[in-house]
Amino acid sequence: MSSIKLWYSPGACSLAPHILLKEIGVDFEAIGVEVRQGAPEELRKVNPKMRVPVLVLDNEVITETPAIMTAISQLAPEKHLFGKTNMEVIHSYEWLNWLSGTVHVQAFGGLFRPARFSDDAGMYAAIQQKGWKTVQECFDAVEAGLHSAHAVGADLTVADPYLYVFYRWGVSGGIDMPARYPKYAALVAKLVKRSAVQAALKDEGIESHAPEVSGVPVVRQHARPLTAD
Amino acid sequence: MSSIKLWYSPGACSLAPHILLKEIGVDFEAIGVEVRQGAPEELRKVNPKMRVPVLVLDNEVITETPAIMTAISQLAPEKHLFGKTNMEVIHSYEWLNWLSGTVHVQAFGGLFRPARFSDDAGMYAAIQQKGWKTVQECFDAVEAGLHSAHAVGADLTVADPYLYVFYRWGVSGGIDMPARYPKYAALVAKLVKRSAVQAALKDEGIESHAPEVSGVPVVRQHARPLTAD
Repeated sequence: MSSIKLWYSPGACSLAPHILLKEIGVDFEAIGVEVRQGAPEELRKVNPKMRVPVLVLDNEVITETPAIMTAISQLAPEKHLFGKTNMEVIHSYEWLNWLSGTVHVQAFGGLFRPARFSDDAGMYAAIQQKGWKTVQECFDAVEAGLHSAHAVGADLTVADPYLYVFYRWGVSGGIDMPARYPKYAALVAKLVKRSAVQAALKDEGIESHAPEVSGVPVVRQHARPLTAD
Repeated sequence: MSSIKLWYSPGACSLAPHILLKEIGVDFEAIGVEVRQGAPEELRKVNPKMRVPVLVLDNEVITETPAIMTAISQLAPEKHLFGKTNMEVIHSYEWLNWLSGTVHVQAFGGLFRPARFSDDAGMYAAIQQKGWKTVQECFDAVEAGLHSAHAVGADLTVADPYLYVFYRWGVSGGIDMPARYPKYAALVAKLVKRSAVQAALKDEGIESHAPEVSGVPVVRQHARPLTAD
């Protein structure tokens, strides 16, 4: 048995590997930290980059979401978390890199962390405005890129819970996601029914922000303040 | 035999998969486009994101450098381009995602493409200045993260040619890379001796920007204008 620890922040992109660890059904320790106002010093000894998620696997420290997902998939190869064919694996990594680099670093990075792009605080509002514009362009691209209730192939892959992270942030930002991005919302509606997703949300103490399912209106979740990645 | 096409721009991050295709010794068509002043319209029909590299494998379009590298590795599994062990594979993806997201999108993105982060051209100089600062912080992190002449394990992996791309950009930017980052320079000095690297540089029509090898001074290469990613 491997020793597995996941460092996460509630609702951050670490939610995606958190869901995947629940999916494969292993025992692991989830360590929550709050990074909205900057990562706490205790994180530095684990990850000098001061970011979540961090996976510690038998004392081996693994950072970067796609690498952590690779490690989780290796723990349960029979789950095919990157897909069943070589081309599905390729397209899973394609989604992960675009979501990590363009959607998270460029778009939401500008919105949530403008100080990464200028030392002049007087510019932050303009950088955030541009980030918000890029977020919506990215969501348009997600919607155009989805052809079923799964991003890759016919089953769950790593791309689905990663897409869910940014969907939640879109809801938090006040976008009517189901109206503007119906295919994206359908993916999320299907995903949140999984017990692994419900368990990860419960552990992180956050709401699903899931769309209302047809015919079964649910109470609209209260949005988190738009200040976190 | 697969049909393989690589869309690249000289000296861009597409150099890394270009080198890897040479490494595995397959026949492929390399299609050069110039993206410094914006990608040409001909690229849009292949990749609406208007970025290089693009790999077209038997008419399947693959974008995002780590996904393209995954595809190339699948073509020659015996080369172990992501490493020989599960943990080497994980750390290869860790390097790729950090290089793609933090080093390319955040650091060099601010430097080369400030318009991605603000619509106000009056802010571009400050965004570029911050990008340049982040580039150097990233190079410090590379230097601290290298423990041998290969980034991962004891042999060439995908991380090495990707690191080389950003080393070249550092030289173009006027940084004395061998003096400030000796381990990084040693990795590059070893890498550029490979025939695959020489062949890719020749096809792209670009200089190596490789460090002088101990005892054998070479003519310092002429730097490219610092306007391209």
